[in-house]
Amino acid sequence: MDPMRFPRFTLALPDWIESVAGDPGRVFETVEERMEFVMELARWNVRNGMGGPFGAAVFDYQTGRLVAPGVNLVVPACCSVAHAEIVAITIAQQVGHRFDLGAENGSSFELVTSTEPCAMCLGAVTWSGIRRLICGARREDAIEIGFDEGPRSDDWVHQLEARGVTVLQDIHRHQAAAVLRQYAERGGLIYNGQQGGIPKTDTG
Amino acid sequence: MDPMRFPRFTLALPDWIESVAGDPGRVFETVEERMEFVMELARWNVRNGMGGPFGAAVFDYQTGRLVAPGVNLVVPACCSVAHAEIVAITIAQQVGHRFDLGAENGSSFELVTSTEPCAMCLGAVTWSGIRRLICGARREDAIEIGFDEGPRSDDWVHQLEARGVTVLQDIHRHQAAAVLRQYAERGGLIYNGQQGGIPKTDTG
Repeated sequence: MDPMRFPRFTLALPDWIESVAGDPGRVFETVEERMEFVMELARWNVRNGMGGPFGAAVFDYQTGRLVAPGVNLVVPACCSVAHAEIVAITIAQQVGHRFDLGAENGSSFELVTSTEPCAMCLGAVTWSGIRRLICGARREDAIEIGFDEGPRSDDWVHQLEARGVTVLQDIHRHQAAAVLRQYAERGGLIYNGQQGGIPKTDTG
Repeated sequence: MDPMRFPRFTLALPDWIESVAGDPGRVFETVEERMEFVMELARWNVRNGMGGPFGAAVFDYQTGRLVAPGVNLVVPACCSVAHAEIVAITIAQQVGHRFDLGAENGSSFELVTSTEPCAMCLGAVTWSGIRRLICGARREDAIEIGFDEGPRSDDWVHQLEARGVTVLQDIHRHQAAAVLRQYAERGGLIYNGQQGGIPKTDTG
């Protein structure tokens, strides 16, 4: 039997991310600083041609320590699941060696994302053990440039809060939405599924 | 800088899955046969202590050929994202070397899942390029044994169909729900997030 019939999948952050993340001792004091960091990840991701204009990161929100960054890796990883939020959560769980980031007493992990999570990533938050979700640009800002955000429930904030996840919206929304618009203006690929191979725009 | 600060993540199917999948030339003629296969994956997953009682697979629905199987690997992969559907989609995209399974003319991939997708997996379907979704047990059957299905939109079938995904429900529902119940009766771990480290039941 062909040993490669069902290949493994490896998710690896791009090399540049370590230098953008800076020293492991670096502290991100405020939610605004954390949002600036994930917007910077989104910009770097576009500049390096890795994929969508989305950045996210898991922080310990009590200490302000970065646990794991994430960027959209759909195109380079050849995986539609590899949204920035999924990448950050997955790497954070490898760092912590646990599938439930909320499982330890006193743990306080938050996900900071440059754009509100799509339907998939929102579901992923509820399974991850993340206690707080910090959002920059709104769903509408992503839709405006052509991304489909998926079948998200209208009362998603309530649904997350009912599961113990605090939600903060509109942190640096204006700047975060500008990252999306700049991507679209540069002719970035809008890679929704179900397009029959015809991207709405092409990578310039 | 510590090179392992942000480790890679590797998703690998368990070794036993090749033998359960059988010969690469095997054809699964009907949706019922495909559902029997993913229920068998779910049973093997429980028997081998890998994780939740969930199986899924991507098929070419015109030829009946298996593209990629998936099982719930949350516990062994240490990753809350590794639901059976996500695993099957991710591996199928590696097999096909493309992040959009709907991107080729004439392609016709379907996802068959032993239990209706949770909120996260439902979102993942919309991004994957999958054209048809075949479900066994209902959300209610999973909730009955204690799994949280996440913030799913009530009109999810309509929302998927609006995005070009046909949905078939209740294929072998009774047998599929029985797999879930047997897992719960054996004391299987119900590993929802946000439990503060206190699983509702323990692995027996």
